[in-house]
Amino acid sequence: MDAATPKPLRGRHLFANPGPTNIPDPVLRAIDRPTIDFHDPDFLPVYREVFAGLKRVIGTRHHLFMYTGSGHAAWEATLTNLLSPGETILVLDSGYFSEEWGKMAAAHGVEVQTVAADWRHGIEIAKVRAALEADRSHRIKAVCVVHNETATGLMIPPAEVRAEIDAAKHPALFLVDTISSLASLEFRMDDWGIDAVVGGSQKGLMNPTGMSFTAVSEKGMEAHRSAKLGRYYFDWSVMLTRKPHDSFVGTVPVNAFYGLQAALKMLEEEGMDAVVARHHRLAEGVRRAVAIWSGNNGPQLFCTNPARVSDSVTTILMPEGHSGDALRRTIRGRFNVSTGGGLGTLSGKVFRLGVMGDLNEAMVLGILGAVEMSLGIDGVPHGKGGVAAAMAYFAG
Amino acid sequence: MDAATPKPLRGRHLFANPGPTNIPDPVLRAIDRPTIDFHDPDFLPVYREVFAGLKRVIGTRHHLFMYTGSGHAAWEATLTNLLSPGETILVLDSGYFSEEWGKMAAAHGVEVQTVAADWRHGIEIAKVRAALEADRSHRIKAVCVVHNETATGLMIPPAEVRAEIDAAKHPALFLVDTISSLASLEFRMDDWGIDAVVGGSQKGLMNPTGMSFTAVSEKGMEAHRSAKLGRYYFDWSVMLTRKPHDSFVGTVPVNAFYGLQAALKMLEEEGMDAVVARHHRLAEGVRRAVAIWSGNNGPQLFCTNPARVSDSVTTILMPEGHSGDALRRTIRGRFNVSTGGGLGTLSGKVFRLGVMGDLNEAMVLGILGAVEMSLGIDGVPHGKGGVAAAMAYFAG
Amino acid sequence: MDAATPKPLRGRHLFANPGPTNIPDPVLRAIDRPTIDFHDPDFLPVYREVFAGLKRVIGTRHHLFMYTGSGHAAWEATLTNLLSPGETILVLDSGYFSEEWGKMAAAHGVEVQTVAADWRHGIEIAKVRAALEADRSHRIKAVCVVHNETATGLMIPPAEVRAEIDAAKHPALFLVDTISSLASLEFRMDDWGIDAVVGGSQKGLMNPTGMSFTAVSEKGMEAHRSAKLGRYYFDWSVMLTRKPHDSFVGTVPVNAFYGLQAALKMLEEEGMDAVVARHHRLAEGVRRAVAIWSGNNGPQLFCTNPARVSDSVTTILMPEGHSGDALRRTIRGRFNVSTGGGLGTLSGKVFRLGVMGDLNEAMVLGILGAVEMSLGIDGVPHGKGGVAAAMAYFAG
Amino acid sequence: MDAATPKPLRGRHLFANPGPTNIPDPVLRAIDRPTIDFHDPDFLPVYREVFAGLKRVIGTRHHLFMYTGSGHAAWEATLTNLLSPGETILVLDSGYFSEEWGKMAAAHGVEVQTVAADWRHGIEIAKVRAALEADRSHRIKAVCVVHNETATGLMIPPAEVRAEIDAAKHPALFLVDTISSLASLEFRMDDWGIDAVVGGSQKGLMNPTGMSFTAVSEKGMEAHRSAKLGRYYFDWSVMLTRKPHDSFVGTVPVNAFYGLQAALKMLEEEGMDAVVARHHRLAEGVRRAVAIWSGNNGPQLFCTNPARVSDSVTTILMPEGHSGDALRRTIRGRFNVSTGGGLGTLSGKVFRLGVMGDLNEAMVLGILGAVEMSLGIDGVPHGKGGVAAAMAYFAG
Repeated sequence: MDAATPKPLRGRHLFANPGPTNIPDPVLRAIDRPTIDFHDPDFLPVYREVFAGLKRVIGTRHHLFMYTGSGHAAWEATLTNLLSPGETILVLDSGYFSEEWGKMAAAHGVEVQTVAADWRHGIEIAKVRAALEADRSHRIKAVCVVHNETATGLMIPPAEVRAEIDAAKHPALFLVDTISSLASLEFRMDDWGIDAVVGGSQKGLMNPTGMSFTAVSEKGMEAHRSAKLGRYYFDWSVMLTRKPHDSFVGTVPVNAFYGLQAALKMLEEEGMDAVVARHHRLAEGVRRAVAIWSGNNGPQLFCTNPARVSDSVTTILMPEGHSGDALRRTIRGRFNVSTGGGLGTLSGKVFRLGVMGDLNEAMVLGILGAVEMSLGIDGVPHGKGGVAAAMAYFAG
Repeated sequence: MDAATPKPLRGRHLFANPGPTNIPDPVLRAIDRPTIDFHDPDFLPVYREVFAGLKRVIGTRHHLFMYTGSGHAAWEATLTNLLSPGETILVLDSGYFSEEWGKMAAAHGVEVQTVAADWRHGIEIAKVRAALEADRSHRIKAVCVVHNETATGLMIPPAEVRAEIDAAKHPALFLVDTISSLASLEFRMDDWGIDAVVGGSQKGLMNPTGMSFTAVSEKGMEAHRSAKLGRYYFDWSVMLTRKPHDSFVGTVPVNAFYGLQAALKMLEEEGMDAVVARHHRLAEGVRRAVAIWSGNNGPQLFCTNPARVSDSVTTILMPEGHSGDALRRTIRGRFNVSTGGGLGTLSGKVFRLGVMGDLNEAMVLGILGAVEMSLGIDGVPHGKGGVAAAMAYFAG
Repeated sequence: MDAATPKPLRGRHLFANPGPTNIPDPVLRAIDRPTIDFHDPDFLPVYREVFAGLKRVIGTRHHLFMYTGSGHAAWEATLTNLLSPGETILVLDSGYFSEEWGKMAAAHGVEVQTVAADWRHGIEIAKVRAALEADRSHRIKAVCVVHNETATGLMIPPAEVRAEIDAAKHPALFLVDTISSLASLEFRMDDWGIDAVVGGSQKGLMNPTGMSFTAVSEKGMEAHRSAKLGRYYFDWSVMLTRKPHDSFVGTVPVNAFYGLQAALKMLEEEGMDAVVARHHRLAEGVRRAVAIWSGNNGPQLFCTNPARVSDSVTTILMPEGHSGDALRRTIRGRFNVSTGGGLGTLSGKVFRLGVMGDLNEAMVLGILGAVEMSLGIDGVPHGKGGVAAAMAYFAG
Repeated sequence: MDAATPKPLRGRHLFANPGPTNIPDPVLRAIDRPTIDFHDPDFLPVYREVFAGLKRVIGTRHHLFMYTGSGHAAWEATLTNLLSPGETILVLDSGYFSEEWGKMAAAHGVEVQTVAADWRHGIEIAKVRAALEADRSHRIKAVCVVHNETATGLMIPPAEVRAEIDAAKHPALFLVDTISSLASLEFRMDDWGIDAVVGGSQKGLMNPTGMSFTAVSEKGMEAHRSAKLGRYYFDWSVMLTRKPHDSFVGTVPVNAFYGLQAALKMLEEEGMDAVVARHHRLAEGVRRAVAIWSGNNGPQLFCTNPARVSDSVTTILMPEGHSGDALRRTIRGRFNVSTGGGLGTLSGKVFRLGVMGDLNEAMVLGILGAVEMSLGIDGVPHGKGGVAAAMAYFAG
């Protein structure tokens, strides 16, 4: 990308990557403070405030364990704390990230059974029930769902999956990855009967990459007590011996807590309903633009199922013969706007527009403008007027 | 404005005010440092680098004096250092700010002769020659021009004024206010034969309000030696006794120098020609949008003279019966975009879009989008497609 | 100083200069924010909060005018808003800064009468009464006092001066410079019958250089209405026309307000009595150290009058034949500690230790340790154990 | 600690905890930047610069893998990438952290053989040879050493351990934890024949907690290929498939790289020899003070072996009947200075003074002053004059 980038670009680098995220200034300024001892009397109230606030955002009254680590770390923590070698998990296929968790589980000696899906349409949830009913010996210990698949821009409704597990009367734990949905889409762990929720700091929580966490139900904690996969850095039982924190093995990342404290305060000021509504509004604006561009054999929504489109990331399929990465280079190199590329097998075939974190309508119009201009510059066929369609929606 | 503002707005506050300015992060981070002594060995190189860099931006090899103060401070410094009570200056009328300088001069006991102008068309420069030729006794000691009038969005070309002074063979000093043009429009003090240039930190120099300055020719310094208006804080002769700085009476504002150092580095990286070209491109994009909006008896460019439009601020005249301030409240309250209001007699009748400082095409599209949506929301008649016109221009 | 400085020094640069000041992190982070319009609905509450808080710190219910400028700017504003050409002021001699204000007044055509003083002992306040009683025609329009003379480390009690003016039944205005005392020493404008108070951001208010101000009594405002010295940038009457701000001619320095807001919040949290007590405690610790050093013909307090020592800056007289500047180079070059030098005629003969702003006992011990080690390194005669004496005091 | 803390304390919070560390302002300001995509053309040069710089600091030309995680994460990564279930490691006992690594290995199913040591004197290195020679079947796969034990303030020289391994002609890998020594004590991985080096961002590298890493020799990489412990987030082979980064599984923590880039630049400016010399000088100053305090049955160095004292953390044993934690509360509550407490079995019996990161002599004197005053305030017996002894050493 270096060669194509005229340097230096000026003005705000508009960021439409689906994570890491648009970090607001108050969060960055909060992190920008000298570190203090994590046992300092000035730190403990911050620590407790963050745990309490984060549990409100997740919608749980149960346990929360945090890690110095990225989202993958939290999945590894969750798997190793809940499972033993040779046990089986049922993974609902949604795209790159559900594949990753499957690979991770397999690397730890866990059997992985997958409910396959058409990535463009999203999984048929009834298949979950079928798979569970077929498992009469209850080999399956956990059902694993990515709430919002960052790679494909698809959402799977956790409450519907829960209903299938209940209908199948299956005792499996219910594990949900909310990394790219928390604080962007509606999420209610306890109400939805989820046993373990995996999340991270670097998307809707509007912080740099570096902190991730698992919220765990009582049923999850009970399973943990007999889980035998190797772990120490991530071990919840070891964490509970680390007083007064009850979490973290090793140094507590003080500055990351400053950042989360600032972000949680912003979320509470705005109100979680307003946060969710804003993400929906911005994502819908993006979709209105894509609907126009898709005319004239242009780029189209990767997700063909309106009930499953993600409100935090939109994956856009390029027309045959046109590279998403080439388009992204033009968008970035000429207009200083950052978009996401295709992951894994979708590499080059799609590009992605995230609307996570601290973003508003005017910023989204700037981003869509850069995309629409670049479609023209690169000679990608497309319907004209995507930005105008988004404006009509935003002003409506 | 409080009542109409749903709180809190999220995302980047896009800033299209014609000063203060879009301050880039490296400048803010540079200011965000503990102060050191202005005689400290670590500070003096910073001080000298800023003076040298700023002289390059101004286009002069002569004297430069800086003040802890805003733009008005620099005009006061310039007037009091160059004039004596009862002397006369010739002010070229351009709008609110030329009126302000006139009032300031009068407050100091200076006679003010004005060359009147139609603010929407811009001054007829030939009138300058006529005024000077009429001044056979050389009562006029200085010709005062606002290079770029922030209130009306009009530009007056200094080289053309210089040519008129020369043609009139008049010995008056030539004083130019470059507050809203420096580092946005082309500016060449020495090449254009300017005797005193007034500028400030808070526009093209991409810094917070707080520093201003005068660059002075040798002819200006000679005039200074006999100028008798009261002054001390601003006195250039006193400054020259303050070693090793040669400027400032009183404490030198260390943190402001950190900010200017960072901004000057960014300007040099981009290159002054590229900076000027970028401001032209962004302003032209704004004008393309306004041209479309002006259809259907909509808002139109205040400046009717294409040769005089400003490349750093566009003043837009509202249709009769519609308030610019009401529109601005919608733009700000609903879309978190800041625009400028009308000043003085233009209050309410116009609104202004600045494209100064650290700005790019995508940001401008976001801003224009917020304006165009707000025109619709407020029921202001306008031609549709302003954003699309800007996009067509930017992608061209 | 460059040659003697091994580069780069590491660790915190401990700052014992008597202004600019130790700026705390919350103030720096507050300044480090994108600028918004000074008419923005988010700014006006900040503006008003700062005016209200600053009036509480000054101890006044009357008028407050602020300037983008340094301390000298506020003195110029005060003189030009209160006086007319040819009028006389009575300046109480205290050191470099009282001389500066005299020079400034003279530059504006004001007559300056001085009450002389021994700088090491401090003015005899009874002389003020004598001077005023001698002025039967009431030529003297204002009595000018520097509350805390930063150059000599002397304090003049304003209440005692007020008592002398009252005793003399003289109608002169009473003007006090509180630049290096406000938010460090006790100060009560209204209670002490002061007509104009001059202050700045860069000392006890813990902000960068760049903002200064005058608080004015009703009597002062009445005098202002007939004062004829030239002014515009600083003109209080012009400011009162600038709605809704009622202050500033020209752009309001938004980021400086963010900084003051943060500092005022810190002062209120600590409590003004605690702030004053802390400055006294730290300055007394410095004096205990100097008392020990003065043994063996070592450096001694410049101020020989215990009733007049400053609690924000200690001026220390070097032994004959030893340069304060050489000592300062060792302190800075070897230990990364910044101290103040002698001003004007005291240049080289003294050095100064400020304890203004965000400072505590441990920092002062580090500073005193660097001084005491440097005395030894440079072979300056001195009594040993200054740091130990300060420790004994701080722990008492 | 809350009750004893008068709030709010003012001035710089002097930080003498042995990690996290004194983070210099340039590092904090560097982190305080909007995140960009870790595939962005502006990020890749930063990424590569950090890897190259960190390898220079470690003293290796071989492999480097980084993790979003704390120091414990890097040990877990190292163990799981190099070992298989049931294999044995030989751990040299040094204190709390060597115990931790042993527990971690055991949790992963690794056998742990320990070479016991008197924590106050430090391990007898000859015992390592004895243990290896006794292992004729080469069950021991790795020798694990904590270079600098943060809990006890003891250093174990890696080169001497290497010599014993060589003398024993044992094929075990040589693993060294350099978390609290890197960029504080001399360290030369390749020269000392180390196969895996574990380090973190939050001590000598002067960054917040959040990044850790392993440098690996070719011999280590060969062992990795057959190592079968469960891992994925930390798996080096998976990392090598993540192009172009060759490290990290999951999101790369962009902002942490900004911070490391700034810190590495500071280390290179100062020079690694100067960095090491400064840490030695500061630690020796602390020891000089403790030697004085130890008189009169006062606190004494925990480490009784001068050849093994740590130059980044000094552990100080309290006199019988006096609590280190009570003393620390006084130091913190009254003087705003942070010190470290005893870990594990040493809890309450010792306190610790770290001199890691961005620290200088004046800061250390402030810290020592706070300790010495607090010893007096709390009635802890001690010899007086510790600060004076440190000053005598620093000025020598």
